[in-house]
Amino acid sequence: MAYTYAAPLEDMRFVIEQVLEAPRSWQACPSFSEVDPDTAGAVLEEAARFASEVLQPTNAPGDLEGCTLDALGNVRTPSGYRAAYRAFVDGGWPALPCDPAWGGQGLPLVLDAAMREMLSACNHAWNMYPDLLHGAYETIKAHGSDELKSRYLAKVASGEWLAAMALTEPGAGSDLGALRTKAEPQADGSVAVSGQKIFISGADHDLTDNVVHLVLARLPDAVPGTKGLSLVLVPKVLPDGTRNAWVVEGLEKKMGIKGSATCAVRYEGATGWLVGEPHRGLAAMFLMMNSARLHVGLQGLGHQEMATQNALRYAVEREQFRTPIAQLPAMRHLLLRAQALTEGQRVIAYRAALAIDEAHHHADADRRALAGSLAALLTPVVKAFCTHHGFHGAAAAQQVFGGYGYVHDYGIEQTVRDARIAMVYEGTNEIQAIDLLQRKVLADGGRAFAALLEECEAEAARPADGDPALADFSTALREQIAAARHTTAAVAAAAQADAEAPLRAADDYLFAMAHLLLAWAYAASARAAKALPASPFTEAKLQRMEYGLRHVLPQATVHWQRACTCARPLPAPRAS
Amino acid sequence: MAYTYAAPLEDMRFVIEQVLEAPRSWQACPSFSEVDPDTAGAVLEEAARFASEVLQPTNAPGDLEGCTLDALGNVRTPSGYRAAYRAFVDGGWPALPCDPAWGGQGLPLVLDAAMREMLSACNHAWNMYPDLLHGAYETIKAHGSDELKSRYLAKVASGEWLAAMALTEPGAGSDLGALRTKAEPQADGSVAVSGQKIFISGADHDLTDNVVHLVLARLPDAVPGTKGLSLVLVPKVLPDGTRNAWVVEGLEKKMGIKGSATCAVRYEGATGWLVGEPHRGLAAMFLMMNSARLHVGLQGLGHQEMATQNALRYAVEREQFRTPIAQLPAMRHLLLRAQALTEGQRVIAYRAALAIDEAHHHADADRRALAGSLAALLTPVVKAFCTHHGFHGAAAAQQVFGGYGYVHDYGIEQTVRDARIAMVYEGTNEIQAIDLLQRKVLADGGRAFAALLEECEAEAARPADGDPALADFSTALREQIAAARHTTAAVAAAAQADAEAPLRAADDYLFAMAHLLLAWAYAASARAAKALPASPFTEAKLQRMEYGLRHVLPQATVHWQRACTCARPLPAPRAS
Repeated sequence: MAYTYAAPLEDMRFVIEQVLEAPRSWQACPSFSEVDPDTAGAVLEEAARFASEVLQPTNAPGDLEGCTLDALGNVRTPSGYRAAYRAFVDGGWPALPCDPAWGGQGLPLVLDAAMREMLSACNHAWNMYPDLLHGAYETIKAHGSDELKSRYLAKVASGEWLAAMALTEPGAGSDLGALRTKAEPQADGSVAVSGQKIFISGADHDLTDNVVHLVLARLPDAVPGTKGLSLVLVPKVLPDGTRNAWVVEGLEKKMGIKGSATCAVRYEGATGWLVGEPHRGLAAMFLMMNSARLHVGLQGLGHQEMATQNALRYAVEREQFRTPIAQLPAMRHLLLRAQALTEGQRVIAYRAALAIDEAHHHADADRRALAGSLAALLTPVVKAFCTHHGFHGAAAAQQVFGGYGYVHDYGIEQTVRDARIAMVYEGTNEIQAIDLLQRKVLADGGRAFAALLEECEAEAARPADGDPALADFSTALREQIAAARHTTAAVAAAAQADAEAPLRAADDYLFAMAHLLLAWAYAASARAAKALPASPFTEAKLQRMEYGLRHVLPQATVHWQRACTCARPLPAPRAS
Repeated sequence: MAYTYAAPLEDMRFVIEQVLEAPRSWQACPSFSEVDPDTAGAVLEEAARFASEVLQPTNAPGDLEGCTLDALGNVRTPSGYRAAYRAFVDGGWPALPCDPAWGGQGLPLVLDAAMREMLSACNHAWNMYPDLLHGAYETIKAHGSDELKSRYLAKVASGEWLAAMALTEPGAGSDLGALRTKAEPQADGSVAVSGQKIFISGADHDLTDNVVHLVLARLPDAVPGTKGLSLVLVPKVLPDGTRNAWVVEGLEKKMGIKGSATCAVRYEGATGWLVGEPHRGLAAMFLMMNSARLHVGLQGLGHQEMATQNALRYAVEREQFRTPIAQLPAMRHLLLRAQALTEGQRVIAYRAALAIDEAHHHADADRRALAGSLAALLTPVVKAFCTHHGFHGAAAAQQVFGGYGYVHDYGIEQTVRDARIAMVYEGTNEIQAIDLLQRKVLADGGRAFAALLEECEAEAARPADGDPALADFSTALREQIAAARHTTAAVAAAAQADAEAPLRAADDYLFAMAHLLLAWAYAASARAAKALPASPFTEAKLQRMEYGLRHVLPQATVHWQRACTCARPLPAPRAS
């Protein structure tokens, strides 16, 4: 049975139009006033066609073939990648959410999010190349000089040139303060970059003629730590057409995303130009990373959708004991759980994209600011929770295939291998948890947290019209809100006595918050489904949301409780 | 940093001697009356040397090289496998728990279990070849004719010849009743076997000159379903030295255990001999599968130990933010959890092996019968729970390595890939859950279940000597016992009204029971550690058991609660 993709267009539109009511938001954003549901639906349909018909067929062969470094030091991507990328650029897809002033289509990020979910589902490794483009575009647009913008911005927006983020070094991963790469100012205003970077996705490839690196490096007068980092744009090909002085030293042999070139790069006095102020590189880079973190969360969502829909098709066709295995109670649990988790996370992830849209485009300044804080709060949850389930959900779906699930031909094992990296890169999930609790909840003075709970309370208070099923959703959501208030207060109190306490609570806190958001997503989705005329879609939607309510949400209790024990110190683990 | 293995000998001996008090049991088993802790310790030390020094170095290269099918249709294992296997046979390891009458060493299975944990940790793929030997030995010994025994038993016990189990066919995995392979009786008393089998581990290889297949097939007068299956011994090389009529049609390209040859085999009128009565093949095969299921559980345990000890070494050496990452609270949680889970499961798995030893060797017949039921109850829990955490524990440990964990050189990603299959083969974990609840708990009249709860109650009642820490363990264990009674009664009641109800409860029930067993293991281990003179080992042990008590056991509540909701029907999952 072939591993194939049918974009969940009906659910995507349901989430965007009915649950999140994005079209109402578009009316309040001048840049989107001409976007309507029909346009949005047409965009998603075309994106789905590209993803399933052009991109997905390159996925399994690309995994077997992988990337190679040729004798001249150039990276070659797997067969078919280049043609798919050409089609992607020719379709105008890279520029979907970019500013029309720079050749973009100016469409809402929530549509871009749905497209990225599709691309990741169909070929995560390939998607690594264009996925970094948007962050680079935002960074250069916000911080680049006019000269850099005129030279690079339109070409990056269109996808004619691609970009890479060069952060990690052998001695510095999560700890960016330990980075050592140097940038020496030159007489002509450029800088000369020297140092070694590792794990650089797409540092080189054969998809575009030029690749634009954004490199974190230190100027000679830099202080130690993260406050001494500057951001430098270092292209592969210089404006005069010569090859810049950096080389790919090797490609990593990885568990998955084998079609994505993970490069070790040595900069040998390579020519670059500062992006933004000296020593303010981290702030500029974070703009890129926040966008990238939402994208990574969407990768996790794509993996879950791909794994779940294929597992369901397999379970319906495969018979054991003269019954389709989809009928077996264990498989019912597994598939309903996968659907409830995937669809709940779709609501949360698209909600984050909508918040980013409103933060940039809403007509009202207060609303922009609030949406910005909400986006900042949601992003680490989306990144960590969706990638956690991207991997674990795919591994659970793999179980449906029995022994076939372990064999390459059936596709699912590749999804599991590919999905694993997303829990690590763009900030490990543990880093996301600390970011959420310390920076977005405790240090924010509770503003975004309060706004989120208000939104959840509003949902819980919406009239259930005497429908007992909807009342159960409201009750469950209220329980999560109460647990969130109680636990956040407990952690804040523990933090007063011991600064390390939130660090001990962070992972459980993030997972608990994700369950609060699921409770909200289930309630909002059930209500929206009830509001539509009954159909097979709304009936199935209600069944899944109810499964989530009864079987997924109980897990929240464990996370809230454990987070509350954070005042207790933890021993250091030892070898026995 | 190299991925290496140091057998947890101190913990293994602590579990065997202090927690399970196996030496007292050996005194009550006439066959083991000469086994003492020093002998046992020496055996484990030698096994550890073989595993870490001879076997482990073949693991990573074997994964890259994989198996090949040569032009003549013969399977070649990766470089180094053959030499390691020679050393294993020369050391007498295959025959460790076998009957001295057939050339075995007659040692307790609990020592064999510790050895198998080591072998799986160091090279799961290689271990697949000898791991099947013991089941084949038991099956031929119990059901084979004298002629088959004299021809095959001693050579299988010594490892001179290896064995394979041929069950699965393209249309029949968990559903053995759908098997179609035929066995035609011949005039000379042999049968001619024809049909296609898939997923046959080690059906052919270059480690031994002969390979003995145990094949499930149908005689001409067989009824449909599982009651028409017979077991047939089909060797690679016939007694007259000619090659038997079966061919390896292909090797699967798998996610992991790439050094293990997973073969599709076509039997073309191959010569074989019935093992046991006609049509009684499944009963004979189950003897082999029960032994195999404990071994598979031990694979999961080995994966966890390997992943955990390497993650800890990495975390102690790797610095970020100028601190070894082992000090970071998120890493403390992750590592303590991994240790608490691994060490708790070691107690449970070795307890199952001890029960099998007593079932076969105890002087008292009642005790043998009770031990047999207890072994039957524990086996599916060990298989499913240890392999679940073999994969998920390895994937959690992978997080410690950051981006390096995704790269082949660091070893951990291979453990994750290898570990995944153990959740599927020898009966999927979902099949184990049904076996536990329906056959071992509900259908058994509660005998084994009552015996298990009695053992747990006895542990909870052991004097805590006024030590509040030990009292907490007893309280937690009593809570689990109460939940187990309550839930089992609820499921039994639901089963009266709806035969499908236990199938809906089964997976949560198995995981909940595993937590009851963890609560018992934590209580028993903490008590045993307190009874020893204080040392770095006992101090670390107490810290881990307490971590398990406070952070691992709370998960039980979710599983008990969900199992209790099994009276409610589940909708069939649908594509949206």
